[in-house]
Amino acid sequence: MNAPPQQRPQRILVVGSVALDSIKTPYGEATEALGGSASYFSCSASHYAPVSVVAVVGKDFPDAHRETFASRGIDLGGLEAAEGRTFRWRGEYMAELGHAHTLETQLNVFADFHPKLTDEHRRIPYVFLANIDPELQLEVLSQMRKPRLVLSDTMNYWIARKPDKVLEVLRKVDVALLNEEEARALAGETHLSRAAERLLEQGAHAVIIKKGEHGALYHSREERFLTPAYPVVALTDPTGAGDSFAGGFVGLVARFDRADGEVLRQAMACGTAMASLAIESFSPKRLVETTADEIEGRVTELHGLVHYDKFRMF
Amino acid sequence: MNAPPQQRPQRILVVGSVALDSIKTPYGEATEALGGSASYFSCSASHYAPVSVVAVVGKDFPDAHRETFASRGIDLGGLEAAEGRTFRWRGEYMAELGHAHTLETQLNVFADFHPKLTDEHRRIPYVFLANIDPELQLEVLSQMRKPRLVLSDTMNYWIARKPDKVLEVLRKVDVALLNEEEARALAGETHLSRAAERLLEQGAHAVIIKKGEHGALYHSREERFLTPAYPVVALTDPTGAGDSFAGGFVGLVARFDRADGEVLRQAMACGTAMASLAIESFSPKRLVETTADEIEGRVTELHGLVHYDKFRMF
Repeated sequence: MNAPPQQRPQRILVVGSVALDSIKTPYGEATEALGGSASYFSCSASHYAPVSVVAVVGKDFPDAHRETFASRGIDLGGLEAAEGRTFRWRGEYMAELGHAHTLETQLNVFADFHPKLTDEHRRIPYVFLANIDPELQLEVLSQMRKPRLVLSDTMNYWIARKPDKVLEVLRKVDVALLNEEEARALAGETHLSRAAERLLEQGAHAVIIKKGEHGALYHSREERFLTPAYPVVALTDPTGAGDSFAGGFVGLVARFDRADGEVLRQAMACGTAMASLAIESFSPKRLVETTADEIEGRVTELHGLVHYDKFRMF
Repeated sequence: MNAPPQQRPQRILVVGSVALDSIKTPYGEATEALGGSASYFSCSASHYAPVSVVAVVGKDFPDAHRETFASRGIDLGGLEAAEGRTFRWRGEYMAELGHAHTLETQLNVFADFHPKLTDEHRRIPYVFLANIDPELQLEVLSQMRKPRLVLSDTMNYWIARKPDKVLEVLRKVDVALLNEEEARALAGETHLSRAAERLLEQGAHAVIIKKGEHGALYHSREERFLTPAYPVVALTDPTGAGDSFAGGFVGLVARFDRADGEVLRQAMACGTAMASLAIESFSPKRLVETTADEIEGRVTELHGLVHYDKFRMF
C-alpha cells in the first residue's frame, strides 16, 4: 500500500456560463435560480481547492447570487458584468428526469461571451472548460501557461455543428467529459467501451463517459475504471449534475496536486458524490451547504459499493 | 485483512431446461446447438464445484451433447429421457443484441416437465432454480433438505401470469436473480435501486439485478454492491448469459462453502466473467473450453476496473 497522498490544494480555473434558471420538475420548481455550468462547477470544486470563475453576467445579476459564490470563497474577479441581461434558461423535466425540455433560452450577454483571461488566470494549474463553443475553448487553451490538468465538457449541439473543433479540443485537453449520447455521436459507435476506444484512436488522451444512473467510465491508454452512481433518494432537479461531477473530479486532483491512477480513481467517486448532492436541490443549494463530512461519507459509501479484496480461486 | 477463504467444493443442483437451440445473430448462426438454462448453468458452475442436473430431454437428444456435459464432469443422473422430442427454440438477435426475437418454441417433452428429485438430489446444499413455472420451483423447494443457498431465476412470462407465485419463490429462496425489466415489473417501480428496495419489502432476502452492459447489482438488507460488466470484445450470441452468470455466482459460493459478504462480492464478479465467456460463442462452447487461468484473469480484470484504496480527503 502506498502512503496516502498529501494535501496541497492548487487553484482551479473554470470558464463557462453563469445563468438564471427557471426550472420545473415533478418535485417542485424554481424561478431565476442561480444556474450555469460555472456556477455548479465552482460550488462543487470549492470544497476541495480555491476556484476562480471566468464568465459573463448582465447588469441585472442579483447580489444574492454573488453572495452565494462568496460564501464558498469563490473568486469572481473574472466575472464580467456586461451591458444587458444575464443568460436565462427555462426548462422542464418530466417524470423520467432523463432529459430537460427547454422551454426558452435567452442567451442575452452570453451570446457575445468572449473569455477574458488575466495573467493570473493563465497561470492557474487546473482548468475546467465548461460547455461553450469549442472555438472559445481552444482560444482559452492557447492562452494557458502549462496547466497540469485540463478537463473539457461539450454538448450534442457542438458535436453536430463543429465536430472537428470538438475533436481538436479533445486532443488538446487531458480529459474530456461526455455523456453516453455525446460519446456515441462523436465516436460514431453505439457500444460504449468501443466508443471510448474510438475516441482514444481519434487522439483523446482520456475520456470520462457519464452513464447517469449507471455510473461513469474513465478510459485512457493507461487506465480504465468505473464508478457506480450514488444511490440517490431525494432526487429533485437533475440540472448541473455533469458540471458538479466535473467539480468533484478536478477538485480532488487539484487538492492533492496529483493525477496518478490512485487519485484519478477516487476523483471519479468525488465527481459522483458531488453530482448526487447537486440533484438533491434546485440550483447549487445543496452543493453550497454540504460539508466535508458529508462528502467524505458519500465517497466512502461509493467505495463500499464496489470494494472487495480479491482472493485466488483456483 | 481476513485470511483468504479455503476451498471445500460442495455439490450444486440445477433444475431447469435442456434444449436444442437454432439461433441467428449478426455474427453467425447455429442449428440445434446445445441450449437451455440447465446447460449454460451447469457448464459454467462446473468450473467451481461438481454439478447435478435435473431436467428432461426427448429420446432424440444427441449423444454428442451428453458428451459435452460429461467432458465437464456434470452428473446427468437426473436428466430424464422422456418419450417424444427435446424442447426446441428458434430465435434471432438483431444488430442491438438486446432482445431475442423468438421465431419458434416447441416445448415438446418440456411441456410436461415435472422435476423428479432423488433422495441424493434433495441433500445437495447449493441449488439453482432456473426459469421454470414458479409452481414447479416451489415444489422443488419443498423437497430440498436444508439447502445452504438457493438462487432462483424467473422471466416476464411468469411475472405477468403468476406474480403471487413468483413472489412466493422470492420469499423462500436466498437470492433471486432478475433482469432490469423483470425487477421493474415485479416491484412496480422504474428506478432500479428503489425497485430492489421494494422487492426486499415484499419479502425477498436478496436480489441480483442484471443490467446488461451496465453490470449487476446485489441488494440485501445487509449488503449492497455492484459489479461492472466485463468489457466484451468478441460478442457472438447473448443466449445463456443470465444462466451462465448464475453458474459463476453459485459456483464460487459452493466452491468455498461460504456466503458471507467477501465471497458474495467476488461471486458477482465470477458470474459476470462466466456470462462474458458464454456470449463469445454459440451454445456453451466457450464455457466448456475455458480454463481456470482464463476465469481467474477475467475476475482479476473486473476487480481492477473498480478497485482503489480510498484515502481520507478532509
